[in-house]
Amino acid sequence: MQTLRVELGERAYPIQIGEGLLSDPGLILPHLEQTRVAIVTNTTVAALYLQPLNEALRALRVETISIVLADGERYKDGATLNQIYDALIEGRCDRKTTLIALGGGVIGDLAGFAAATYMRGIPFIQVPTTLLAQVDSSVGGKTGINHPSGKNMIGAFYQPRLVLADTAVLKSLPQRELSAGLAEVIKHGLVRDEQFVAWLEQNVEKLLACDQQALAHAVRRCCEIKAAMVAEDERETGVRALLNFGHTFGHAIESGLGYGKWLHGEAVAAGMVMAADLSRRMGYIGQADVDRVIALLKRARLPIAQPGIAPGRLQASMAVDKKTEAGRLRFILLDRIGAASVRAEVPAGLLQQTLAGAG
Amino acid sequence: MQTLRVELGERAYPIQIGEGLLSDPGLILPHLEQTRVAIVTNTTVAALYLQPLNEALRALRVETISIVLADGERYKDGATLNQIYDALIEGRCDRKTTLIALGGGVIGDLAGFAAATYMRGIPFIQVPTTLLAQVDSSVGGKTGINHPSGKNMIGAFYQPRLVLADTAVLKSLPQRELSAGLAEVIKHGLVRDEQFVAWLEQNVEKLLACDQQALAHAVRRCCEIKAAMVAEDERETGVRALLNFGHTFGHAIESGLGYGKWLHGEAVAAGMVMAADLSRRMGYIGQADVDRVIALLKRARLPIAQPGIAPGRLQASMAVDKKTEAGRLRFILLDRIGAASVRAEVPAGLLQQTLAGAG
Repeated sequence: MQTLRVELGERAYPIQIGEGLLSDPGLILPHLEQTRVAIVTNTTVAALYLQPLNEALRALRVETISIVLADGERYKDGATLNQIYDALIEGRCDRKTTLIALGGGVIGDLAGFAAATYMRGIPFIQVPTTLLAQVDSSVGGKTGINHPSGKNMIGAFYQPRLVLADTAVLKSLPQRELSAGLAEVIKHGLVRDEQFVAWLEQNVEKLLACDQQALAHAVRRCCEIKAAMVAEDERETGVRALLNFGHTFGHAIESGLGYGKWLHGEAVAAGMVMAADLSRRMGYIGQADVDRVIALLKRARLPIAQPGIAPGRLQASMAVDKKTEAGRLRFILLDRIGAASVRAEVPAGLLQQTLAGAG
Repeated sequence: MQTLRVELGERAYPIQIGEGLLSDPGLILPHLEQTRVAIVTNTTVAALYLQPLNEALRALRVETISIVLADGERYKDGATLNQIYDALIEGRCDRKTTLIALGGGVIGDLAGFAAATYMRGIPFIQVPTTLLAQVDSSVGGKTGINHPSGKNMIGAFYQPRLVLADTAVLKSLPQRELSAGLAEVIKHGLVRDEQFVAWLEQNVEKLLACDQQALAHAVRRCCEIKAAMVAEDERETGVRALLNFGHTFGHAIESGLGYGKWLHGEAVAAGMVMAADLSRRMGYIGQADVDRVIALLKRARLPIAQPGIAPGRLQASMAVDKKTEAGRLRFILLDRIGAASVRAEVPAGLLQQTLAGAG
């Protein structure tokens, strides 16, 4: 087992990474304020991991209640959030009951926002069961739900007490979800660490085959990169924004298609190609760099172009993006492979060429 | 004008108190991140103060949008919260738009929770227009909405950038609301400052007559007491809980009657009498102390007994109170006039005598 720490003063917390951690709830016990937890998960994950976690916690005399939600990004909304609130109230959960998110990014975001807002905040633990959640969404305290007008429009920054990333559970992931997680893995390298990009170029097939050592290295390196950026900039007023690379385009793709048609990581992959393309049009990187991004994403079995949504529709979605400031869109663009910057001065003409997929 | 500071490190903020501050939005300007604000208010307050505030801000070239909600505690719910979100999205408000709460406790709680959760948190300013909001709810960062099962069940701790308390606006308050605010004023004295209780016993009629100097003193002293407790214990794990004196009973009264029948301060007044009565039954204070509490509340024209709700019903409401821990109710009880403690060891029999109004 490897342990990292997200350094956030009184809100600091550990990330524990390793094979088989889920069956060792003794790791969770020291982080509870009372021997009572509510586990939030979805039907798919519950079928695989809820019973073992429940039984192991109960063997340690921890009382548990289970809140099992429907599976899918389209349930990341106010109605499902209310379902969690109702179950917490019904189960007489109080301010010291710990909420455990057992699942992927959607469960982590939903459960985290419920934990942030139930009785003005209760203790929270992330047990991410997808690669995307292990390398990205479970770390850093972003929680929230979607609004008909935009993704993650309603939410809070709320840090967990512990993140427990069991790489063994990734073996049960469908290939498409594993690839979607790799999109976020590749993102961490592209914005911050060229050496890690080179490592990925050598190991992407091992990751797709769920090689445990390779996965543990990738999860660890992503968490290190993210933890450092979050420690420097918890509320994303600066450097942390670089982790949104590919996301402005990606969210527009998801919104244009209707949430849930593509996986988040798939939309981010196509979005990163668009962001790389725009970086080239702006003169920051060359065509060889764009090709390198595309080649790696292809090998990770990810889409490298958006699925034919009208450019005007993409642009309309981007206009309500959270990264807008005073009506002006800001883009995360590559300076080179392994480094990125926030750019506000993108000419409309170049953006349109990227959106239209011009050559 | 008097200025206090709530010392919360990077979340520290000033409270400005004085007559006529609302017509001087130059006080607001230095706290904005961009010259764009959304003002959240209700129909009653809007009729009195929205236009002057709007015009004054616009004269300083601050762009404003107004979100006018229905007036009343029963609108402090998820549906009204969504109305605020929709208006913020429709108005293309971004992460740097400041949300100004112009109104009493309900508006402050609702608008504060919207600010805490829109795009994971936007800047927030409190302009409290009731005595209750000026002395209590606008200071300390508690925000939230009610749930059918309990008051303020959903919420967040979220600090404003500035609190602007204009004592002149209190002249437009109905007498009942002024009295309800006095309940919270008296509470601050009872739990923390016997000297202030003595001052109130000399000045309660002046406060009821809206004497500006007396009001400024009372608002300042309450804010000082509260700011010190909040600075010591932002998330209410310790001393801050004392400010809930009378509130466990008060919330049960509000819930038993149906929210909105009695004003919050009225329920708290009757709740404080019950808490004082229970303190006496526990042997912490004498009958003379209880009589002193009752006499002061009477002079402030507040109810001193709950309106005949069945004791069993009150007890059922209290069981879902946020202050419950591991199923055990905790009470804030008086040690003497001017000092209080959290007590968990209350025998059920004594509680029942208090609830039944036994002699």
